[in-house]
Amino acid sequence: MSLVITDPPRVPAELAAAFAPFGVATVHEAQGRTGLLAAYMRPIYPGARIAGAAVTVSIPPADNWMLHVAVEQCTAGDILVVAPTSPCDTGYFGDLLATSLAARGVRGLVIEAGCRDVAELREMGFPVWSKAVSAQGTVKETLGSVNIPIICAGQLIHPGDLIVADDDGVVVVPRPAAAAVLENSRAREANEASKRERLKAGELGLDIYKMRERLAEKGLVYRRHGDAG
Amino acid sequence: MSLVITDPPRVPAELAAAFAPFGVATVHEAQGRTGLLAAYMRPIYPGARIAGAAVTVSIPPADNWMLHVAVEQCTAGDILVVAPTSPCDTGYFGDLLATSLAARGVRGLVIEAGCRDVAELREMGFPVWSKAVSAQGTVKETLGSVNIPIICAGQLIHPGDLIVADDDGVVVVPRPAAAAVLENSRAREANEASKRERLKAGELGLDIYKMRERLAEKGLVYRRHGDAG
Amino acid sequence: MSLVITDPPRVPAELAAAFAPFGVATVHEAQGRTGLLAAYMRPIYPGARIAGAAVTVSIPPADNWMLHVAVEQCTAGDILVVAPTSPCDTGYFGDLLATSLAARGVRGLVIEAGCRDVAELREMGFPVWSKAVSAQGTVKETLGSVNIPIICAGQLIHPGDLIVADDDGVVVVPRPAAAAVLENSRAREANEASKRERLKAGELGLDIYKMRERLAEKGLVYRRHGDAG
Amino acid sequence: MSLVITDPPRVPAELAAAFAPFGVATVHEAQGRTGLLAAYMRPIYPGARIAGAAVTVSIPPADNWMLHVAVEQCTAGDILVVAPTSPCDTGYFGDLLATSLAARGVRGLVIEAGCRDVAELREMGFPVWSKAVSAQGTVKETLGSVNIPIICAGQLIHPGDLIVADDDGVVVVPRPAAAAVLENSRAREANEASKRERLKAGELGLDIYKMRERLAEKGLVYRRHGDAG
Amino acid sequence: MSLVITDPPRVPAELAAAFAPFGVATVHEAQGRTGLLAAYMRPIYPGARIAGAAVTVSIPPADNWMLHVAVEQCTAGDILVVAPTSPCDTGYFGDLLATSLAARGVRGLVIEAGCRDVAELREMGFPVWSKAVSAQGTVKETLGSVNIPIICAGQLIHPGDLIVADDDGVVVVPRPAAAAVLENSRAREANEASKRERLKAGELGLDIYKMRERLAEKGLVYRRHGDAG
Amino acid sequence: MSLVITDPPRVPAELAAAFAPFGVATVHEAQGRTGLLAAYMRPIYPGARIAGAAVTVSIPPADNWMLHVAVEQCTAGDILVVAPTSPCDTGYFGDLLATSLAARGVRGLVIEAGCRDVAELREMGFPVWSKAVSAQGTVKETLGSVNIPIICAGQLIHPGDLIVADDDGVVVVPRPAAAAVLENSRAREANEASKRERLKAGELGLDIYKMRERLAEKGLVYRRHGDAG
Repeated sequence: MSLVITDPPRVPAELAAAFAPFGVATVHEAQGRTGLLAAYMRPIYPGARIAGAAVTVSIPPADNWMLHVAVEQCTAGDILVVAPTSPCDTGYFGDLLATSLAARGVRGLVIEAGCRDVAELREMGFPVWSKAVSAQGTVKETLGSVNIPIICAGQLIHPGDLIVADDDGVVVVPRPAAAAVLENSRAREANEASKRERLKAGELGLDIYKMRERLAEKGLVYRRHGDAG
Repeated sequence: MSLVITDPPRVPAELAAAFAPFGVATVHEAQGRTGLLAAYMRPIYPGARIAGAAVTVSIPPADNWMLHVAVEQCTAGDILVVAPTSPCDTGYFGDLLATSLAARGVRGLVIEAGCRDVAELREMGFPVWSKAVSAQGTVKETLGSVNIPIICAGQLIHPGDLIVADDDGVVVVPRPAAAAVLENSRAREANEASKRERLKAGELGLDIYKMRERLAEKGLVYRRHGDAG
Repeated sequence: MSLVITDPPRVPAELAAAFAPFGVATVHEAQGRTGLLAAYMRPIYPGARIAGAAVTVSIPPADNWMLHVAVEQCTAGDILVVAPTSPCDTGYFGDLLATSLAARGVRGLVIEAGCRDVAELREMGFPVWSKAVSAQGTVKETLGSVNIPIICAGQLIHPGDLIVADDDGVVVVPRPAAAAVLENSRAREANEASKRERLKAGELGLDIYKMRERLAEKGLVYRRHGDAG
Repeated sequence: MSLVITDPPRVPAELAAAFAPFGVATVHEAQGRTGLLAAYMRPIYPGARIAGAAVTVSIPPADNWMLHVAVEQCTAGDILVVAPTSPCDTGYFGDLLATSLAARGVRGLVIEAGCRDVAELREMGFPVWSKAVSAQGTVKETLGSVNIPIICAGQLIHPGDLIVADDDGVVVVPRPAAAAVLENSRAREANEASKRERLKAGELGLDIYKMRERLAEKGLVYRRHGDAG
Repeated sequence: MSLVITDPPRVPAELAAAFAPFGVATVHEAQGRTGLLAAYMRPIYPGARIAGAAVTVSIPPADNWMLHVAVEQCTAGDILVVAPTSPCDTGYFGDLLATSLAARGVRGLVIEAGCRDVAELREMGFPVWSKAVSAQGTVKETLGSVNIPIICAGQLIHPGDLIVADDDGVVVVPRPAAAAVLENSRAREANEASKRERLKAGELGLDIYKMRERLAEKGLVYRRHGDAG
Repeated sequence: MSLVITDPPRVPAELAAAFAPFGVATVHEAQGRTGLLAAYMRPIYPGARIAGAAVTVSIPPADNWMLHVAVEQCTAGDILVVAPTSPCDTGYFGDLLATSLAARGVRGLVIEAGCRDVAELREMGFPVWSKAVSAQGTVKETLGSVNIPIICAGQLIHPGDLIVADDDGVVVVPRPAAAAVLENSRAREANEASKRERLKAGELGLDIYKMRERLAEKGLVYRRHGDAG
């Protein structure tokens, strides 16, 4: 059955907003190295970083009809997350759909398929993470579903989950875990900030992280170049 | 036989120039979704958009001799389009050939193989769409042909055909179709401009395109989150 | 055995510095078209060009422990070169390690695996050439070796060899060959500069390189479009 | 946390056995075209077809320790299903583990990573569907989990779900759906058998499926070769 | 416009049949190294070799409706050749369509997309060359065309052209060239047969092809291992 | 300089022969998990297993001239190992070269490029491990070298090194290490044979390898399905 679920619970807007300073790598670490989408999900232009609640779309191959349906389900701060039911690099998304999403305050798109109008999207500042760039168009013949759980680029995503995306890729944080992951991200970032200062000052990770003893135990051997083996 | 066809008829310069405002996605749609080169043809730097007449080159693997022959066949406003006779990512093209082409007023290169001197080409503003970036050089031992029909990245291209290329990729418009495709591109763009305004103002595609009835007919079901299935 | 070789001989700093004006394509040609790393080694941001002495690291899949060991072996002007013992796109390297390397004057990283914190690295101006971008983290369980000969992206690299990297990719010059390759690079560049001027002025490569006779001997045929075949 | 869930409910053995005559394509259609694993999951030798209950394993990159843990959780008729937490083609599995699984009556392995000892496995008749063949070994340093829900090759798989695999690939049927999907598979197969006879006798699908009218409505035009367009 | 061209001229049946002894590599050489389809077109099982006249199909992504239309256009000895209008690995073709084609005497299928029911097709002995194996099904919503010129896997194919396919891949011979290519194939094979005997007897290609002089001219140096360089 | 080194020392024939019973995975483990060629090196037909001394060839892209030169350098028991100087999938090798090599007692070919005449090679029983199958032919214009050290599929190979290849891939054993690796392979195989018997009898790896304690130390938790977390 083709279904549109309306008004699913979303990760609260202020909670999502609090993720703004944190990159994908930090958030991924902060939730125990889970939730990272496949590395082929790349930004169409460098420098964007967004966090928001997922509106999910399951969509047939080479058919973007349901994206029009999904737009209506989006509210300010959302991120549209789209996965085709079979692999497809067709250009599902362009500047008209982006204009419509931007008008509703949507922060960006994550799509395991193709995107087009890249120059216009960069100019608009509407960021997209996609598997491909392709000008190839789609048809509007077959239904899909909106706001059901989907698997996108290898991760299970529920509507309302938190999505964070930047130049490193895309990570999903399950809605119930978002508050805890925010705490971990903050703690991790604070810890890293202090480490960064010490490393900048020339201290070595070997000493900061006290690695020398364990390395020796494992059998690491240092030998001066030219000395006998 | 290795052949150079001189002075093939070209899409007229003013007609090619009239395509300047239109992107690859628009032109591709305007000619009925045909003519798009494979999505692995990517620009070596973002932001370029060109339109011009194709000078075609069929070239052996890892041998760029015929590119020197082809330069002489190019005139102002042309785009050089190159396909190897067997798949090859070697770096056939660099800044010297680009200097020579630029001196003749050539607008850019489309090559289903490798390109090098990317930093210099970006600095010169000479755009290239290629399958690969590779510093690996070529030999000059075997002939090929210039201005014969070629298949480049999955599309049949005749000398003199119109080529349009931007961040979305590359599309070919057969010379006889160019005038009609220009009309369609203009009509399409005009139509999209009015749609863009309405979408920007918050109207929904569902309403603008009158999709709701057909979606319902196909059986799309809306259900409020939490309501029974 | 896991081994760290300390203080290997390096290509002299002033010699490495003299390579600064030359791109990868030039250096690759100047040493007889050898030493080019595989084309999948791409810069994480455009525009960087570096030359320096290799500190080599052989590292287990998905385990970046030895990078911390390697940092201590680096001195100003070095380039860290890392290859996993089996193929792996995990994100071994991020902004903390980069901060530590930058504090020691290291010029950049070449890694046949994944890199993360791309936005931060771009902001820091710490260039990386990698096979992938991935936020996926690594463990610290298994040893590797530092400053042993490694094969990285298809090339044999000894510690202390010269590495040159730019938008075209990465090339290695064996330490003993560096002085001669520098001479060749200079000669080549000088020769190209004069060619570039002539090409800019509209002379043809066909004439500059005196290709017409050999092309005719090989049987190249010119035919005016529309003339009988 | 690293967790081994023991004795999860499984799709009943007789229900799984009833799937034996049906191929992956049939089962996939019979459950509404869902559940198909990515097409890169290929059998290591042709001709095997298996159906059974999934024992799931989430496993670190390049570390096969948990496979030994998983063996103990397997019972006769099971299929081991393994996904690494980050992409990895290392050879996790070979003939010793297969011997151990075969001794317990396990029907085969589905692994989104590498497999080795292919010749021995073919000789034993222990079928494997994997993403890669690689002799590269793994370490035993880091824990994972057994019988938790995993995402393998793009599909969510719960322990106890039904797995069907053949030369076409691998499909998962959620445990609660298995009985209904079996009915659909039977109905579909019966329907196809009658169609097969009619097609064999030379009847056309155009007539059997009554497609001609709808094709004409959509505007399909027949034209004899050589007639004017 | 969606068009079915009926009764196009075909390469004569006895001419196609005469190609039976020749492999793809021979035919490809015999027509001057042109016409080879991309190397990703692989047989679904080893050992098949076919030659016949092309019935061509241009087909939308993930929609196999037109295959049913195409069946009616096939006659004994034909080979169905299918290319999607945008790249797609979906499983367009299975054992029912094969049964229908086999009933009409069709020799096999070449499809730049996915195929399923591989085990059944192998059992039936109906050979397929495809880009992918995938159980994923298609819809029947959008028209395409039959017996128009198509580009399949990088080659232009007209209806009625000769197709030869074996374990090495697929080659197309334009209909007007088939007789001449047959002669060349025979001559080439005869020549190779005599060479094969001499090579089998231990003569060297260096001598048979009289390569030694030209190698020496080009500067090839022989040096005994251990002698000074 | 293009060089042919004649009569390099080879791993002794009887030593190479002694590797016959051991697979690639065993030999790779026995030499400390080094020497494995990239996993894209696949056999053109299943079931072959060979061991012998490498005759190495460095060869230009799409030019197989040096293979004819290399044949003369081969003696009974050798394996020809070929790497192009830049990546290339062209079909360098077919049944005529195989006939010539077989006449000299060569055991097989390892080539990081394309191979053709696959059906004939399978019939002859001449095994090839290649990166691609392609009927595309090569030219004979440019020299290369024979019996110099090469990098093939990511591994450094010296002439005379031991090569072992089977369905799992290809591994190189440096000549000086061959005797020791043979010992290790035998020991490993003996150890595995006893393990295999115990596993076959139903003993668990967990017990045979005494893993339970270390797993518990690392924190592995067992929980019965349905029990609280």
